[in-house]
Amino acid sequence: MADKVFVHQRALNESSAVGDGTRIWAFAHVMKGAEIGRDCNIGDHAFIEAGAVVGDGVTVKNNVCIWEGVILEDYVFVGPNAVFTNDRRPRSPRNPAAAERYRSKDWLAKTNVREGASIGANSTILAGVTIGRYALVAAGALVLKDVPDFGLVLGVPARVSGFVCVCGGGLDKAQLSCRECDRRYRATESGIAPAELGQ
Amino acid sequence: MADKVFVHQRALNESSAVGDGTRIWAFAHVMKGAEIGRDCNIGDHAFIEAGAVVGDGVTVKNNVCIWEGVILEDYVFVGPNAVFTNDRRPRSPRNPAAAERYRSKDWLAKTNVREGASIGANSTILAGVTIGRYALVAAGALVLKDVPDFGLVLGVPARVSGFVCVCGGGLDKAQLSCRECDRRYRATESGIAPAELGQ
Amino acid sequence: MADKVFVHQRALNESSAVGDGTRIWAFAHVMKGAEIGRDCNIGDHAFIEAGAVVGDGVTVKNNVCIWEGVILEDYVFVGPNAVFTNDRRPRSPRNPAAAERYRSKDWLAKTNVREGASIGANSTILAGVTIGRYALVAAGALVLKDVPDFGLVLGVPARVSGFVCVCGGGLDKAQLSCRECDRRYRATESGIAPAELGQ
Repeated sequence: MADKVFVHQRALNESSAVGDGTRIWAFAHVMKGAEIGRDCNIGDHAFIEAGAVVGDGVTVKNNVCIWEGVILEDYVFVGPNAVFTNDRRPRSPRNPAAAERYRSKDWLAKTNVREGASIGANSTILAGVTIGRYALVAAGALVLKDVPDFGLVLGVPARVSGFVCVCGGGLDKAQLSCRECDRRYRATESGIAPAELGQ
Repeated sequence: MADKVFVHQRALNESSAVGDGTRIWAFAHVMKGAEIGRDCNIGDHAFIEAGAVVGDGVTVKNNVCIWEGVILEDYVFVGPNAVFTNDRRPRSPRNPAAAERYRSKDWLAKTNVREGASIGANSTILAGVTIGRYALVAAGALVLKDVPDFGLVLGVPARVSGFVCVCGGGLDKAQLSCRECDRRYRATESGIAPAELGQ
Repeated sequence: MADKVFVHQRALNESSAVGDGTRIWAFAHVMKGAEIGRDCNIGDHAFIEAGAVVGDGVTVKNNVCIWEGVILEDYVFVGPNAVFTNDRRPRSPRNPAAAERYRSKDWLAKTNVREGASIGANSTILAGVTIGRYALVAAGALVLKDVPDFGLVLGVPARVSGFVCVCGGGLDKAQLSCRECDRRYRATESGIAPAELGQ
């Protein structure tokens, strides 16, 4: 990784809070007040709004908007044209009949994407949900509720259909072991977690 | 609102028919021949085509294209990555085998989004439909047919699941009153309408 | 068509392999190493990655990304915000725990869109599928498996619901004739094909 922030000549970076090694590609726009960590990749035509928080080592693919109220923890992947929201009942704030709703920021619902999770291409994430650590949201899914750690969710609306490994491989349901690497997992009260030494 | 049109330094506005107070943000493109009213907000990476008609006080979020044949009335909200269409059976016009279809504009199907309606993030609107006044299309919905005034539609394909208020709040189905403000509604032959004084 | 490549003043073309008559519109980005044929139309905010292959007479609408591993044959139409993918289990390559997966290009799954096919607006195409000749993927569809030649697929996940003509018209199922033009088709072992003289 390069030491400094790389901003493509056709990109627009207005933030002073972008970490070293992060690259911002053509026609992407990072607003003043957006926070981005180290070694991220912000694809062409992406938009990072003031108030958005992006961790280290995150990949944001093309045409993705990260709004105020959205937090992407370290190592998150956001696929192309995946769509976040921050308002569950949007109206045009320019309509006097809806102005009351936009007087404060009570309308803003926050979304957390936890460490290492993957948000599939063209999926839609409803404002207010939490996507668990290393979860994988399938391409085209519509996520209306929280996704458990390591959960694989798919469909409209999205439902849990299995579990995935840190590496992205699918887990054998009986063994809770990854089909692609040698990692093992264990059942917990709320889902699964990596198997620790001695367990 | 500012008195004049604001065009971001990285935006491209080629239209002379944009109303006062409208703001056009970075990497957005408004073509010559597009009509946009007053006090609108045209988000980053939006595209307003020649022949598109946008009313006053409209919010067009990022990555939205408003094509020829699409009419957005006053106070409409279009969420990020929501997608309009104007051709129900598209082919590449550059294919000689499909050239006949594109000789005239008979292929073009018009879409009307009526006053104050909200089009959810990443929803898809089939060419030829009308979205009723103050209707709310949920995020990720696929709209294949007309949506009634104040209707809340969701899913793939989208179906009516309730009604919403001018302010965005949900309506109590029995009382036809808003759960968020003091507005009341009444049943009509075709759906619902605001309750007038004396009704 | 113009004789030369047209690159809009606000577009970015870095490829030397773009055919005559092709037009690249505002804020679109064609990378070095992308191949594009003659007489194509690359819409605003489109992105053509190094390694992508686009044939002649192709229409790529706005906000579409054509990735390495995606091949669009001649006369393909890709609707606005349609989304291709090339990784079935994406992780952020910047995560050391996923680095093994991205050491080689084994993760890359190729997608073929065959001659004249139409990819509907805001549809999602899973990496690794083939879309048959003159097939039509409906707006908003999620394509998880191969689509037969002339097949019309719709829904989430997409299923075959009929057949379409080269011209885009629907086929009468009994007669296998187009409802819009005079073309006729015949049943084959794997689906349908144009009826030849003498058949």
